[in-house]
Formats: sequence, C-alpha cells, structure tokens
Amino acid sequence: MPRFTKKRLKKIGASPGTLVHVGEKKTEKTRISLLDYDEEHLQEKVLDNIEAAFPLKDLPTVTWINIDGLHDVDVIEKTGQRFNIHPLVLEDILNTGQRPKSEEFEDFVFVVLKMLYYDKNTKELNSEQISLILGRNFLISFQEVQGDVFETVRERIRKSKTRIRKAGCDYLAYALIDAVVDHYFLILETLGENIEILEEEIIENPTSKSMQTIHDLRREMIYLRKQIWPIREVINNLVKGESSLLGEPVHLYFRDVYDHTIQIIDTIESFRDILGGMLEMYLSTISNKMNEVMKVLTIIATIFIPITFVAGIYGMNFKFMPELEWQWGYLMFWGIIAVVVVGMTTYFKKKKWI
Amino acid sequence: MPRFTKKRLKKIGASPGTLVHVGEKKTEKTRISLLDYDEEHLQEKVLDNIEAAFPLKDLPTVTWINIDGLHDVDVIEKTGQRFNIHPLVLEDILNTGQRPKSEEFEDFVFVVLKMLYYDKNTKELNSEQISLILGRNFLISFQEVQGDVFETVRERIRKSKTRIRKAGCDYLAYALIDAVVDHYFLILETLGENIEILEEEIIENPTSKSMQTIHDLRREMIYLRKQIWPIREVINNLVKGESSLLGEPVHLYFRDVYDHTIQIIDTIESFRDILGGMLEMYLSTISNKMNEVMKVLTIIATIFIPITFVAGIYGMNFKFMPELEWQWGYLMFWGIIAVVVVGMTTYFKKKKWI
Amino acid sequence: MPRFTKKRLKKIGASPGTLVHVGEKKTEKTRISLLDYDEEHLQEKVLDNIEAAFPLKDLPTVTWINIDGLHDVDVIEKTGQRFNIHPLVLEDILNTGQRPKSEEFEDFVFVVLKMLYYDKNTKELNSEQISLILGRNFLISFQEVQGDVFETVRERIRKSKTRIRKAGCDYLAYALIDAVVDHYFLILETLGENIEILEEEIIENPTSKSMQTIHDLRREMIYLRKQIWPIREVINNLVKGESSLLGEPVHLYFRDVYDHTIQIIDTIESFRDILGGMLEMYLSTISNKMNEVMKVLTIIATIFIPITFVAGIYGMNFKFMPELEWQWGYLMFWGIIAVVVVGMTTYFKKKKWI
Amino acid sequence: MPRFTKKRLKKIGASPGTLVHVGEKKTEKTRISLLDYDEEHLQEKVLDNIEAAFPLKDLPTVTWINIDGLHDVDVIEKTGQRFNIHPLVLEDILNTGQRPKSEEFEDFVFVVLKMLYYDKNTKELNSEQISLILGRNFLISFQEVQGDVFETVRERIRKSKTRIRKAGCDYLAYALIDAVVDHYFLILETLGENIEILEEEIIENPTSKSMQTIHDLRREMIYLRKQIWPIREVINNLVKGESSLLGEPVHLYFRDVYDHTIQIIDTIESFRDILGGMLEMYLSTISNKMNEVMKVLTIIATIFIPITFVAGIYGMNFKFMPELEWQWGYLMFWGIIAVVVVGMTTYFKKKKWI
Amino acid sequence: MPRFTKKRLKKIGASPGTLVHVGEKKTEKTRISLLDYDEEHLQEKVLDNIEAAFPLKDLPTVTWINIDGLHDVDVIEKTGQRFNIHPLVLEDILNTGQRPKSEEFEDFVFVVLKMLYYDKNTKELNSEQISLILGRNFLISFQEVQGDVFETVRERIRKSKTRIRKAGCDYLAYALIDAVVDHYFLILETLGENIEILEEEIIENPTSKSMQTIHDLRREMIYLRKQIWPIREVINNLVKGESSLLGEPVHLYFRDVYDHTIQIIDTIESFRDILGGMLEMYLSTISNKMNEVMKVLTIIATIFIPITFVAGIYGMNFKFMPELEWQWGYLMFWGIIAVVVVGMTTYFKKKKWI
Repeated sequence: MPRFTKKRLKKIGASPGTLVHVGEKKTEKTRISLLDYDEEHLQEKVLDNIEAAFPLKDLPTVTWINIDGLHDVDVIEKTGQRFNIHPLVLEDILNTGQRPKSEEFEDFVFVVLKMLYYDKNTKELNSEQISLILGRNFLISFQEVQGDVFETVRERIRKSKTRIRKAGCDYLAYALIDAVVDHYFLILETLGENIEILEEEIIENPTSKSMQTIHDLRREMIYLRKQIWPIREVINNLVKGESSLLGEPVHLYFRDVYDHTIQIIDTIESFRDILGGMLEMYLSTISNKMNEVMKVLTIIATIFIPITFVAGIYGMNFKFMPELEWQWGYLMFWGIIAVVVVGMTTYFKKKKWI
Repeated sequence: MPRFTKKRLKKIGASPGTLVHVGEKKTEKTRISLLDYDEEHLQEKVLDNIEAAFPLKDLPTVTWINIDGLHDVDVIEKTGQRFNIHPLVLEDILNTGQRPKSEEFEDFVFVVLKMLYYDKNTKELNSEQISLILGRNFLISFQEVQGDVFETVRERIRKSKTRIRKAGCDYLAYALIDAVVDHYFLILETLGENIEILEEEIIENPTSKSMQTIHDLRREMIYLRKQIWPIREVINNLVKGESSLLGEPVHLYFRDVYDHTIQIIDTIESFRDILGGMLEMYLSTISNKMNEVMKVLTIIATIFIPITFVAGIYGMNFKFMPELEWQWGYLMFWGIIAVVVVGMTTYFKKKKWI
Repeated sequence: MPRFTKKRLKKIGASPGTLVHVGEKKTEKTRISLLDYDEEHLQEKVLDNIEAAFPLKDLPTVTWINIDGLHDVDVIEKTGQRFNIHPLVLEDILNTGQRPKSEEFEDFVFVVLKMLYYDKNTKELNSEQISLILGRNFLISFQEVQGDVFETVRERIRKSKTRIRKAGCDYLAYALIDAVVDHYFLILETLGENIEILEEEIIENPTSKSMQTIHDLRREMIYLRKQIWPIREVINNLVKGESSLLGEPVHLYFRDVYDHTIQIIDTIESFRDILGGMLEMYLSTISNKMNEVMKVLTIIATIFIPITFVAGIYGMNFKFMPELEWQWGYLMFWGIIAVVVVGMTTYFKKKKWI
Repeated sequence: MPRFTKKRLKKIGASPGTLVHVGEKKTEKTRISLLDYDEEHLQEKVLDNIEAAFPLKDLPTVTWINIDGLHDVDVIEKTGQRFNIHPLVLEDILNTGQRPKSEEFEDFVFVVLKMLYYDKNTKELNSEQISLILGRNFLISFQEVQGDVFETVRERIRKSKTRIRKAGCDYLAYALIDAVVDHYFLILETLGENIEILEEEIIENPTSKSMQTIHDLRREMIYLRKQIWPIREVINNLVKGESSLLGEPVHLYFRDVYDHTIQIIDTIESFRDILGGMLEMYLSTISNKMNEVMKVLTIIATIFIPITFVAGIYGMNFKFMPELEWQWGYLMFWGIIAVVVVGMTTYFKKKKWI
Repeated sequence: MPRFTKKRLKKIGASPGTLVHVGEKKTEKTRISLLDYDEEHLQEKVLDNIEAAFPLKDLPTVTWINIDGLHDVDVIEKTGQRFNIHPLVLEDILNTGQRPKSEEFEDFVFVVLKMLYYDKNTKELNSEQISLILGRNFLISFQEVQGDVFETVRERIRKSKTRIRKAGCDYLAYALIDAVVDHYFLILETLGENIEILEEEIIENPTSKSMQTIHDLRREMIYLRKQIWPIREVINNLVKGESSLLGEPVHLYFRDVYDHTIQIIDTIESFRDILGGMLEMYLSTISNKMNEVMKVLTIIATIFIPITFVAGIYGMNFKFMPELEWQWGYLMFWGIIAVVVVGMTTYFKKKKWI
C-alpha cells in the first residue's frame, strides 16, 4: 500500500534552511553525471565530485548535471552555493515529501515533480521526487534513486542533428518533464489492465479477495491523483509565467505536455468512477448469491418440514388412531405427501423461484 | 466495453515530432477525396495521391480534402509540409488518443473531435478521432475509418444554391462539427431507449443480468462524458478565439452548436443520475425479494416446527403416558394442532406478513 | 415518466436553417391571438391568418401576438420574414427540444422557456416550450399547446389603469416570464405534498411501491432541475445584457423573478436531499423488518428444535432404554422441556430479542 | 418537520406590486413599537397607529420602528408611502417565503433575514421572516410574530453611554443582524446536543426510532442550511456595497458577523457529515445484529438437526435393525450424539462464531 | 470525541466589544514571558505584570510577548490599550471559538490560528486557539494553555547568529506560524498510523468496534479539516495583503508554509477517501461473513431435513407397511440416505458452496 505521510520528525523544530535529507536513503552512493552539448559538440561524463562541473556553468553550451541520490547533503550544498540557489529551494530538494510545484526565481526556475513506479519487490506503487533547476544555460536534475526514465532523453541527445541538440536548456527541461509525464501513461495502462482483470473476476467469480483488490486499486488511485493533480498547475504556471528562461517556441511543447496531463487526470477520474461502479457490482453480486442460497434453503425446508410433520403424525402411539388400521393407510400417506410436494412446487414455480 | 487507455508504448521515448501512427489500423487503404467549390463551380474527385490536391491550395475556392485512414504516415507528412503544419500538430493527428481540443496557429486552426459510434459487431461504444485543419481557403479533415457522418454535408454541397455553397471555409468547418455533434444525439437516443427498456426490466423482473447492464451503461456514460465534455471548451475557444479565420457571421452558428453540446452534457448528467437511481431500485428490489423469501420460510417453519414437536411427543415410547390410552387422545392431538395453526396465522396476519 | 430525449431524427442531416417542426403535434390547429394596447386603447382579436397582424408592427402601441401550435411551419416562416428574425431563431422555435436560453440580436431579444405541467391523463410531468420574441414595440409568443398560463396576464391587460397598461413591451415580457416561473411554484407544491404523503407511508407502512414512487419523484426532480436550472442564467443574461430593449425600470422586476428562480432551485435541491434521505430510510425500514422476521424464526426454531430432539430420543425403539420404564419418565420429559424453554426465553430476554 | 414550500396560491396570478400577506397569520394584533434616541435622549413608546411615527422621520435622531405582525396590510402600505419604499419591496416584506437577501436602493437598504426557532408546542424548527429597512436616520424592522430576539438590543439602547447610543442607524442595523445571527448559535447548540444524545443511543441501543431521528435531524439540517447559506452573501453584499448608508466604521462590525456566519455554515456542514456517518453506523449496527441472530440460529440448527436425525433413525420400526437389539445400543446413541456436538462446537470455535 | 460547538451563552446578548473570556479556563495562572532581541543582544524574562513589557514597545529591537492563559481579562485589556488594539480584536482573542483568520489593521496584523493536540487523558483531538498580534517591532502571542510548541523557536532565538536573530518581527511571525503548521504533520502521522492499524484489523478480524473506530476517525478528520482548511486562506491573505508589516523577503517563507498547508489538506482529503473505502470494506466483510454463515446453515439443513423425513417415514406405525417387514429394509434405508447425501453434496460442489 502506498504511504501517504512521510516521517518528518527529523526536521520538525529545525530552523528553516537547515539542510537535512528527509526521506529514505534509497541508493547507495550519490552519482553525478554530466552532459554538455550544443549543436556541434557533445561531452558526457560521470563525475567524482561536483566541483568538476562548476566551470561549465558559464559556457554558452547546454550543461545538464544529473544527481542521483540525495543523502550526500554536502554535494547539494556546494551546488547551491555555486549556482546561487536559495536555501529554501535546497531544503525542498532534500525534503522528498514535497508536492509537485514550480517556482520562478530571478536566475532560475525550480520544478518539483513526482516520478511514479511499481516497486519490483513489493509490487506497490511508489513515488520518487525529481527536482529540476533550470538556469540560463544549465539544468540540474536531482533524483532520489538511479533511474532510467531520463535514458530516452539521453539517447536523443547522443544522436547529433536531433531537435534537442539544436534547442536550448528550456527544451531540455521540457524533454525531461515530458519523459516523466509519459511514464504516467505506463502506470495508467497497468492500472487499466488490472481493472479489466478484476472486472472479469467480479462478474464470473467474486471472492472476498476481489473486495480487497478493489480497495487497493482505489488507494492507488487516490495516491496517483494526489501526485498528478498538481502537475497540471505546475505546467500551467510555467507556460503562463513571466520567466524569460522559457522561450516562446518551447511554450507550444509545454502546452502539449499540459494536454497529456489533462488526459491522465481524465483517465484517473474515469477509473475512479469505474471502480466505484465495480464495488457496487461486487456488493450486489454477493447480495444475489445470498438470495440464491436463501431460496434453496427455503425450498427444501418448506417442502420437507410439512411432510416430516405428516410422517410424525403416523409415528404417534395413540391407542385409537383409525388411519393406522386401514389397509390403504400407508398409500394414503404417500398420497398426502405427493399433494404437498406438487402443491409447493407449483407455488415456487409461480413465484419464479425455480 | 469501451477502453479508456490506448497503448502508447510505440511512442514512449520517441522524440516529440516523430510521426508514428498510434492506434489500431482501422481501415485498409488511405482514401483521399476532394471537394472544391464556390457558389458557381463544384469539383468532386477521389485522388490517388495527395500531391494532386496541392495546386488547389492557392485558389480562392473552398478546397476540402478528406483523408480516411491514418496509417499511411507518408501522406500525412507530405500534407504537413505543403500546408505548413507544425510537427506537433501532425503528431496529434496521428496519435488517436487525443482529447478533443482546438488550437489556433497563425495560418490555420486545428480542431480535434471524437466521433462516437456503436461498433456493428461488438455492439460496443467506440470512438474515432476526427481532426480538422481549417486554413484560409482550404479545410483538411482526417478520419480513422471511412465513415459516412460527413455524407450529409457533401449532399448539401452538391446541391447548388445552398447556403454552404455561398459561404466560406469557416462555415464548412461549422457544418462538419455540427454533423459530428448531431451524431451524438443518435447515441443519446439509443442510450435513452436502452435505459427505458432496462428500467421496465428492473421493475418487473430484475435478474443479475440487469446489474451487469446497469454497469455497462454507466461505463458507456463515463466514456461518453469523457469524450464530449471537452467539446464544450473546444467550441467556446473557437468562438472566443481571435483567429481571423472564423468570420463573425459564423459565430452565431457556432453558438448554436455550443447550445447543442450543453444540451448533450445535460442529458448525460440526467442519465447518470437516473442510472444511479436504477441501481438503488435494483438493490432494493433484490432486498425486497429476499425479505419475501424469508417470510415464506419463517411462516412455514414457525407453524410446522411446534406441531411437529407435538407429534414427536406422542411418538414417544414411555410406558406410562396417560394421553396415549385416552379414547379421545388422537382427537385432542388434532385440537392442539388446530389451536397452534390458528394462533400462528392470526399472529402473522397481525404482523401483516400474510 | 418524463422523457429526456426528443426524437431529432427528422432533423439530423438537414441543412441548418431548414424549418421543420421537431416535436409532437400537440394541438389541432394553430391559433393566433392578438392583443394590441396602450394606456388608453385595447384591441383583442383571434386572427385567421398571421398577415392580419403585420400592419400593427410599426404602430407605437404594444402588440402582443400569441401563436399556439407550431406545426403550421408556414405561419412561423411568414412571421420570420416580416419581423426580420434570423433563420436559426425560427429553427429554435420549431425545434422544441431547446434548453432555456436568451439571445440578444440587434432588433429583438429571443427567450426560450419551458412551461411545466402535469399531464391530465398520464399524471406525468411534461414540458412545453414557450418562445418569446421581444421587439421594439411588439412581442410574439409561441406555445406548443393552447395553454392558460398567460390568461392571468391577459386579465390584467384587459383592466384599464393597471401598471401593465402603462408600461411597455419589456414589462409585458417580464409579466409573461413571471407567469411561467410562478407556475413552477404550483409544481413544487404538488411535489412537496407528494413527498409528505410518501414520507408518512414509508414510516408507517413501506411497500415495494414506495420505492417505485421515490424513484419516480427523483426522476421528476432531475427533469425539473434540468428545465429550471438554465432559467437562472437566462434572466441573469437579460438583466446584465446590453440590449436597449429592456429598460432600466424593468430590471428591478427581473431581479424579482431571478430571486424566485433561485428560491425554486433551492427548494428542488432540498427536495432532492430529502428524497435521498427517504430512500435510506426506506432501505433501513426494509432491513429492520427483515431483522424482525429473522428474530421470530430464530426464537421459534431455537426453542423447538432442541425439544423436538428430546421427544425424538424417547421415540426410539431401543430394547434397553431405562427411562422409558420409569414411572415418572414422562413427567421427567416435561421437566426437561420446561428447563429448555425457560432457559432459552431468559437468553432471548437478555439479548433483548423479546 | 419543517415545511419547505409555502402556499403561494393567494398570490399567483396577482399583478406584481399588489400587497397581499402571504404566510400564516402568526400573531393576533399588529404591534408597533418605537425607539428614538441619540447620545443624550431616549424615547420609547408603543404606538396605536403608524402615523404617529411619521414626524420623527426627518429628525437627526436614530428612529427605530419595530412592527410585529404583518397581516395588517394597511399599516405596511402607509409606511411604504411615507418612507418612499418601492412596491416590490413592500411585497417582499409581506410575502414571508423570501430567501434572505439584501438590496440597495437610492434612499434605503433593504435586508431580509430568517429568524429560526423551535416551536414550543410541536418542537419543530420554524422560521420567521425579519425585514429591515435602513434609511438615512431611521430603521424599520418587520417581524411576523412578537419576538424577544431584539430585546437584548433594546436593553443596550436603554442604558446610556453605550456604544450603540453614540453610533448611528447603521450600527443599529448591525446590532439587529448580529442578534439574529447569534441566535443561530443557540439552535446549533441544541442540534449538537441532540446529535450527541443520538450518537450514544445508536452505539448502545439502536432502535428503528433512531433512524427516524437521524432523518428528522437531517431534514432540519437541510432546512437550516437553506436559510443560513444566503446570509453569507447578504452580509458580503452589505460590506462590499456602495451604499453611503453603511459607514466605514461599521464595516468592521459587519466583517465580524460575516465571520460568525461562516463559522455557523462550517458547523452545519460538519454536522451533516457527522449525521451521514451516524446513518452508516446505524445501518452497520443493524447488519451486525442480524448477523448475530443468524449465528445463533445456525449454531442451534446445525447442532440439533443432525442429532435429531440420529434419534429419528432409532425410532424406525424395521423388523431387522440389529442396533435396537444390542445391549449397549442406547449408550452408543449417546456416544454418537456426543461426537456430533463436540465436533460441531469445535468447528464453530475455529470459525470464531462462539 | 471532538466537540463542534462551544458554549457561547455567556456572550449572547452582550454588547460587542465587551471583554469576556469564552472558553474553558484551561490553565491555572496567566503567564507572561518576554523575549527581546536583535542581532547582538538578547533578553529573556518571565514578567509578573504586563506593564513591565510596555517600555520595550518603542525600542527598535524585536519584542516578543507571549501570554499563556486568557482568563485574566485584565491583562488583555491593558495590553489592548497600550498597543492600540481594536476592541473587536481583543474580543476575538478571548472568544476561543474563532475560525482561523487574518486581519490587517493600520498598525498591526492580527492572526488567529488553531493548535491541535491529542489530550493526554482522554486521547481526544483537541484544539487551542493561538492569536498573534504582529506590530512594527513587537509581536504578542496569546495561548490558552502553557504549551511547548513555540519552544523550538525560542531555542533558535537563544542561539546567536541564527537567521531569526538577524531578521525582523515578520520573520518571527513566520517562525511561529510554521511551528504550528509543522505540528499538524505530527497529528497526521498519528492519524495515518491509526488508519493503517485499523485497516489491518478490518481485513483480518473486523468487529463492531472497528466500525466505531472508523466513525471516530472520521469525526476527527471532519474536525481537523474544519480547523485547517481556513489556514490556507489565512496565509494567502498575509502574502497577498498590502500591509507593509510583512516585508518582501519573508513572503518566500510564507509561500513555503502555504505549500505545507496545501500538503496537509491534500493528505486529509486522501485520508477521508481511504476511510470511506474502509467503511465499505468493513460492510462488505460483514456481508461476506453473513453469507458464509447462511451457507453452512443451508448445507446442514438441506442435507438433514430430507433424510430426517425418510427416517420419519419408517417410524410410522401403519399396520400395513411392506418395507418394514423386508429383510433388507434397514439396509435399503441407508441406501436412500447415501443417495440423498451424495446428491446434495454434488449439487453444492457444483454451486461452489463447499
């Protein structure tokens, strides 16, 4: 089950601006990778220390520094100093319980996103915080774990003559955000398939596990919605914002991402409605089954209880019971039984119980 | 059941602007038909290749190019180059999982709509994406399958002296959008009839299939709503937009379509409410039936269980049981039975169970 | 049951602006009545043909033409030509599936309203479309059937020295709209009474018919809401509109109608909430009854099943059963019975089942 | 139960502006009381006729005329003429089915409020309409019944040197509105206590009466909300309005009342949520009880039905039944019984039914 | 259970501006503590009377007066006079039933917040009102009880060279509000843990206590939401407000608190959804259990009732019953029994009841 609150205890009471990594230590070592490119040149490196990236800051090429792992507070701090990042922003990067948001500063734009993935071990929906610092000609991305969601972007950069190589930093930011949002479609597809499997199960053979599955899917939906809903606003702010860092030509691309986000939210809402309907169907199926069980019981009981009584009568030991002496008494008994059974059966047929 | 997510896997990771047809290949061959007209002249052709349509672009007549089938990416690409269409737009045309939207560009207006229809084989509600590119004196429409929803518009164009022949490209766009929206009323009528049939079924003889039908109708409603809701916005944007491509006189017509859309949305909402009510009615009917079954069981059981006990008593083999020796013992037994039966019956009558 | 979709088939595919009456032919003959008045004079006539009313158009007196019955398309068409009404408006008048709306044109204001009434035969809630064309000094009203909702307005006009005789066309429009809205209160009162009757029924003796009645009332409420909700907007548009046809002094009166509409909508919402609550009460009453039935069954069964077993024991034919030989065996049997019955009864009393 | 519709029949069809008292005649005689004061002077009187108050209109002192009872239309009419009140306003004062609202006119501000109280006889929530006409230096208040809600305001006026004596008419209006709103807190407290009593009842011993009480409380809540919700808007309009009759210093006080109204609405919403939860708890308790009843029945039946069968076997009269002849047959019978009973009991324990 | 209404009786009818403490007397003695600091100096004292703090008002240092306990109206009144606080504000400070709000005055900004905590004795969620008066270079905070939520802020002040020592009064206000909001996360974590415990309980072993717990948690959620929702607005007002008392640099910090508030509200909404789902799961589990009970009963009854009847037949005493005389009669009886039992069992297996 996805967790909705993060332990914030470490931070409570600390002075704002104190850099403490709040969140699980998700990866072993902080890994710094660098991509520096323009239309002609491309340089790709894995750095040992962050300082090696600093000289590139002032070059006109696009410098993309990707930092995987947030527990090495020192790296973050140095980066903050060199790139002139407000302490509250650094704090937000480290505190991985953020809500997706975008904030414009004088020198850079700060974007927090949530990357969603199914944990390979627990099969649970999980989220990782991805922060982007978009500057004049650099972009720094922070991830909690070493992920491969940005790999497709890297591939595109490695090929020369792609649009991304001709475009600036803002287009890179778009490409990264687009990669994250595109990833949500994968989650939705998995969910959609799970919902369809569940639906068939409920129609054909609902068990008490189905209820549990509905419940888990709903929780995931609530979680998903909580993570994705604010992204709409984030992208809207970026497009409507006044920052000169996002050029006019990139706006069109952001509008495209915006459309995708709306589409994702729409689908989540539809899924929620469908799950609501499935719950009702499940409950009604249970109800129906109970009804059927009751009918069987009633049919058996109402047929046999009266005839058992009749058998009981002729089991009595009264001295003077004329029927017992009759020659055709036993046949008469079976006659009575036949009448009761046929009568009852007719009644049930009329009631459409059989 | 309508599907809510489309497989996007083909596209994920691809560079934006790469043209890949995302969706099922719904038709065999791409079919290009051309209608070129003004008040006086009319030319109608089926083209072999798209290039044949290019010279008409610069004529002052209204040129309507209709392309059925999107899997021939080549055709789309050439059209895009010739008519100066932004790569992202071409991508949206090919990726049939779009949400209805309208976008204004300098040279053209781009509209995405959803055509809804019941699949003839599966009886399921399905959607087809229809894209319109409205330029200065041309209009290009893209459909996934070869449909006949635009046939009525063609008929009107073929007749001379109709309003459509006198009007420009924007009126043609209106006529096409109106044809699509009018088609929704057909869907609503089918749904309305299905709902009424279902309602009678639920009142008279609800089965577990009814529940399934309610569920299916609700899913269709969710699907419908998801497809139609954004159209409201689409048309609003067109009317409120600043594009000079939509002349003032056509605004009134678009307002009319807008009214229809609102009406459709209103009806969908009403249908949703009604279906919600039907579910409750279904559940309560099931509940009522169970109640009735229980009553029959209870009546039979509470009458016969006590008298069976009485019969049991006189079936005992105690040596000293005075009643067994009495001459009127057997009669007395029937007396007791009569008292119990009458008493119970009176009690049930008082309780209004019989 | 009120119907939510109208057959539009006749129209689909027709060129916009083609005049076809969409709706049932509700009245036998189109009836044209005329009232022409100012403070001093009054002229009231039933006209044979619409042409007879045309000369009055240019007089400074208030000319009210009321047309009952819409199937005579010819009359509507001539009126349209003479009074310069846009073809789309004529179409809206004839197509009785409109949503209430108001539209301002240069020469006139167009208002569509819905008159609600209970059909005398079917006892169902029904709606009739009323369209108003408010011009400089004329007002044309269109009704589907010959109704008497405007009769009270006519009465007021017939009396001299009433406010309506002193006021202009806009006040007449207000008076007609007010008459329609006032009529809704009658519907609400009927509904309110039905709800109260139903409520008592549900508390005292709920049957499966009650459920049906709740469902019908809810459908009527959905229908009512769909018809009345847009009227709020209609009147708002009229007051906030820029048309010079609605003078400042009449605004206050329209604000009054607006207040009434809000009040009606409020009451509908309250009724909906109350009906929702009644459904829950109905279901819980059914549940309670079932519970009671179950209790009776359980009490009878749990008392008699054990003692029947005891009787069964002494009905056995074992050769060696010492109890059967005892002199006080039969008495002992009754002792056991007494113990079981008293024990069970005490247990049920403790459980508060009796 | 509070009623949601008022009989409007008297009025329907009447010309707007005709003064008819719509509502029950709630008090015997119209009572006119007058308070005229400034910082120095105070004059308090009960007037026989309304004309006696007219001369005070033009004095600079604050003149508060309070009219209890609305059935004497004559008094209202004369007041209207003297104080120049628009006929529609007079109509609104008399027609007690108004929604709370405020309207600004050139010479005065018109406020309609609802006073809520529990009827002493029927214990039902009832509402009374209170209308205020706030002029330059007079304030006229209309009540349906002779109430004491304004008594606290009068007391404060009677004391000299209170803030109210120093302030103007607008402060008096504030004081009266505040008195009405403060009264709602009393209603809320009564409701809150009833809810708490009900909650304990439902947890400890829910009866079918509890359901009825929940339903009644919900109806009251719906009624309350309908009456109080618009007051928010009323006060907002007063504060944001442009009328010069409400001085800047009084705005702060109105903001205070506004806060109280929001608080009341918040509490009503909370109560609604709580009542919704209580209904669910009630239903689940009923469900639980049924479950328990079923368990008892099942335990008794499943233990005794099999052993009764065993007893039945040895009650058979077959000529050749070896067990009957055995010396230890009867003991063997009890052995079988013991096995069945112990087996069943163990099964139920495993299932956690006992 | 948290209480939703406070006794306001003391105040009703009182003239606005009269200072009466409305709320429980939560602490023994009013405690006044003072912190006066700038970058260099720090002075911390507990004062005996409020007058001792007055001279500091006009110094340029930041003066923070914290008053714990509100029942000593005298202290509040004197503070009000000295610091020029509007009587309505003083009233709001004392009346602890306020909704969180912020109001800007010429000389100060007034903020009301709610501090939430679990009562150590009753384990119930409780709220305490915290009011802040932020002036030019002083800040007065009022608490109902002597709490330690501000202790972390004090610690930070005590250390020299912290950011708070360099900043002004507005930063102090931020720090205090941040401390309150941070505290909500603690409440949320407790709630989140309780929800998770409850969830496991419901899946594994739901009892009627679970229902009670769901209900209690929902009430707490309603309460929480009512207290926290307005804080969003409060901080928004502070940031968007025009008061010069909140400097530009502090806005960024307030935006951070705003983000936290949104996050808290999001989490509350998610919890509400989850609790709603848990209720449904609980009800369905109960339903499932009932179903299982019914099945056991039905299986036992439908197997044994028919065979008991068979046993009953051969217990009859008819003179002429050929079967009784047969040598293999008794064996035949067991044969019949076997057939019935096997038949029934097969039927149940087919129905998937066993």
